[in-house]
Formats: sequence, C-alpha cells, structure tokens
Amino acid sequence: MQRYFVERSQVDLANGLVRITGDDVKHITRVLRMKPGDTVIVSDGCGTSCTVALKELQEFEVIGDIRHSLQSREPQVKITLVQGLPKGDKMDLIVQKGTEIGVSEIIPVETARSIVKYDEKKQTKAVERWRKIAKEAAEQAHRDAIPAVQRPQPLRQWMNKLSQYDLVLVPYEGEIVQTMQQILRTAGPIHRICIAIGPEGGWDDGEIAEFLALHAQPVTLGPRILRTETAGLVAAAVILYEYGEMGGV
Amino acid sequence: MQRYFVERSQVDLANGLVRITGDDVKHITRVLRMKPGDTVIVSDGCGTSCTVALKELQEFEVIGDIRHSLQSREPQVKITLVQGLPKGDKMDLIVQKGTEIGVSEIIPVETARSIVKYDEKKQTKAVERWRKIAKEAAEQAHRDAIPAVQRPQPLRQWMNKLSQYDLVLVPYEGEIVQTMQQILRTAGPIHRICIAIGPEGGWDDGEIAEFLALHAQPVTLGPRILRTETAGLVAAAVILYEYGEMGGV
Repeated sequence: MQRYFVERSQVDLANGLVRITGDDVKHITRVLRMKPGDTVIVSDGCGTSCTVALKELQEFEVIGDIRHSLQSREPQVKITLVQGLPKGDKMDLIVQKGTEIGVSEIIPVETARSIVKYDEKKQTKAVERWRKIAKEAAEQAHRDAIPAVQRPQPLRQWMNKLSQYDLVLVPYEGEIVQTMQQILRTAGPIHRICIAIGPEGGWDDGEIAEFLALHAQPVTLGPRILRTETAGLVAAAVILYEYGEMGGV
Repeated sequence: MQRYFVERSQVDLANGLVRITGDDVKHITRVLRMKPGDTVIVSDGCGTSCTVALKELQEFEVIGDIRHSLQSREPQVKITLVQGLPKGDKMDLIVQKGTEIGVSEIIPVETARSIVKYDEKKQTKAVERWRKIAKEAAEQAHRDAIPAVQRPQPLRQWMNKLSQYDLVLVPYEGEIVQTMQQILRTAGPIHRICIAIGPEGGWDDGEIAEFLALHAQPVTLGPRILRTETAGLVAAAVILYEYGEMGGV
C-alpha cells in the first residue's frame, strides 16, 4: 500500500482526520489517480502510522479518515550514525542505506582528516538533499519514522553530547581485540547507541584519545578494511541483528 | 603496506620468488617510486599472502624475494552471493561492497523479474568491469582472495548446483516468521553458505516454490524493506558477524 509522511500538525486525532499536502497530492490524484474510498498508509514520521481512507481529493490537499493504527516497524534500539564527512557524494549513499537499514539519526561531523569543506550555502543545499533522500528511503523501506539528518558540525562540538548515549562505538583500524560481539553481548540493556565512523583517512590519534577519555568503546569490524561509507552500514546491521530487530513474530 | 594480487603461476615457491607484471609494475616503479629492498604484500588471490622484498625493478616486471607468509584475513565461512540482475549500475556497488564485507563468490542470475538483458558483447564487458571492481576492492580491503564473479546465468541453470551449499538463504518479503538469527543459530557447522537475492521486484511465486522444493530457507531480513542492492550486503554482514568472522584475536 502506498505510504506518505505528514507533519504531526496535519493529523487531527480528535476528529480522526489526516490532511495530505504538497507533492504527495499530485502523486495521489495524478500519478496514482486514486479516488475517494481508496486507502493509503500515513505516517507522522515519528514512529506512528495508520491506514487512511481518502475522502476529499482537491487540487492542493487531500483529506482522509483515519481507520486503523499499525504496529510500528521502528527498532526499539535507536542508532545514531555519526559520520566523518566523506568525499564526493558518498554521504548520499550513507543516508539512503542507513535509512533503509534502520538508523534513527545521522550526524555528519567535520574531523581532522575530513577534506570536504562546505560554505554556509552549499551546506544548506547538501542538508536539504540528504533530508529528501532520507524521506524517500524511509517511504520505500516502509519505515514509520524518517531519520533526523543533522547539519554538519565540528566533531568536538558533538562530543559534548556524548553522555546522552548508552553506548558509543568507534570502529578503528588500530583496535584489533575488542569485537562488536563482545561489546554488544556484554553491554546490558541498551536504548540509545551511537556508531562514530571516521572519514576516508580514519580518525587521527588525537580524536581517538578524546573518544577514550569520554568512555567511548573502540571496536574492530574485522580484518577486512571497510571503506568509510560501508563501515557504518555494516555496524548498524549487526547491531539490529544482535538485538533481534531483524524480524520474526 | 601496499598489496598486489598475482596469478599463482607468478609465484615460484621453490626459489622463493614472485614475479609482478602488468599495471602493477608501473604502480610500483612510477607511482610509488619504490626501490630494491622496499617491501610489499603479494597475494595469490586464493587466500595466501606474504611479504615480499623487491629485488629487480624492470620496465615490464618486478622480481621480489618472498619473506614471511601472513595469516589469512579470509573468512572460514564461504559466502556465495547470488544476485538477481538489478537495473542500471547497481551491480557495480554490490560487487564492490560485497567484496569489502567478505563474500567469496558473486553469481548474477537472470530471473523472472529481472529487466536487464545483456547481449553477449555487453555481458562480456560487464563481467570484465565487475572483476576489475572486485580486484580493486579486495586490494583496498586488504583481502587475501578476490571473490570470483561469474557470468550472468539463468536462475534455473544455477539452481542445479544448489546442493553444493550447506545452507541456502532466500530473503523474501512474504516470509515473516523465520529470521536470520533462528536459522544461523540452529544450523550447526556451516562451511559454504549461499544468499539468493531477488532483483528489484523480488522473486516471483514460481521461483520461491522452486527454492522451497530444493530445501532452500526463506528468511525475513526484518520489517524494513531493503532495496535489492542492500539486502545481500546486510545478509553477508550478519552471517560473518554471527560466525565470529568480524575480528578479535
């Protein structure tokens, strides 16, 4: 069934109504040529979805009746992917694949070895593009929430917020002992977990020292060296696997 | 340390010599401007690597002395990724990322819902490109083997060889009960495992029925729907994770 994300303000729970606006109206009326009575899935983008029977199809908005609420497909464990800004358009791939796999938040960070520098205008454009990619990937993956994509920020600024996570994992080529299995299987109950991925050249020694001082966990992803755009996706997949977030009833 | 793949015929074990030819010679002599006595890693592409001290650097070949053999970084569990031919250049991404993560073999198959059709010439060009991508990704990932990339073949032709695997996993949207965890944790000792990924539209019902008749295991990768180019990479990552192939000493 076709899935649309709306703002919370477009959901009128008291009257059981949803108002769909913007590009989705054209998609419903012109692309899919839907009619009153047809059903779609509407998500508030924060984890709640319901089936909606379309009622009024107008040129600039579609009104529908909320029918049934749906069981959330969102993972219980919330993964934040902190990504050292990579070269070229790799961030596009990271946002798309991270969204499909199930991360909750993506934070690009400027690191010692990040080569990319954005001016204010370019950065705004890039963030807008990443958010669009996240929305479309969330729709296609049948997610009930769109991962929040933050504006790029200096690594050290983000480090001030490190204590909000139950666990911070830092994949690092210099770590050869501590594995994902060991950490995840002994960590106890985890609700918010962060994976911090260095850019192409990896984290530098100073950054690793700061992570350690803040009790982040260096970890190996194995003897095969993953590219920066691959490492976070692999780490996110194994976290969701380990916590039983890959299906089953 | 820089890593080069050579054919087995270029390794002269009796005399402890390696002969490097082709593009790698230019890379050694002109790009890296190496000199006699400099050390590189040479892999035979089948799982064996050693350090090599360069001895004679000529225009079309470089001869080196084998010094130490290195512990293999190859997984014990051999993963074959069978991929329903996807659209556009997605196969390039699948080959690159599959190689990084650690699959041993990639077999593109023509399925009921594959849209791409190659003529003989285009197919040969595509296979050449995929093999080059696999070689470069294996070098960058510090692997000791290059995954074998087969020519595209009809799904049913490949199905004749299904019995060579200890386990064949078929991720499928229609399967909502059986998870990767359940299968992998109860499968017993596994040496050769196959993941069969449908193309963009997924497997059709007839294909699934044939897989079941051949005792392949349908499996869910969870409630979030992964694109065809993402599913095999996620499945390969969790298999290697589950079997302890993601590092540690």
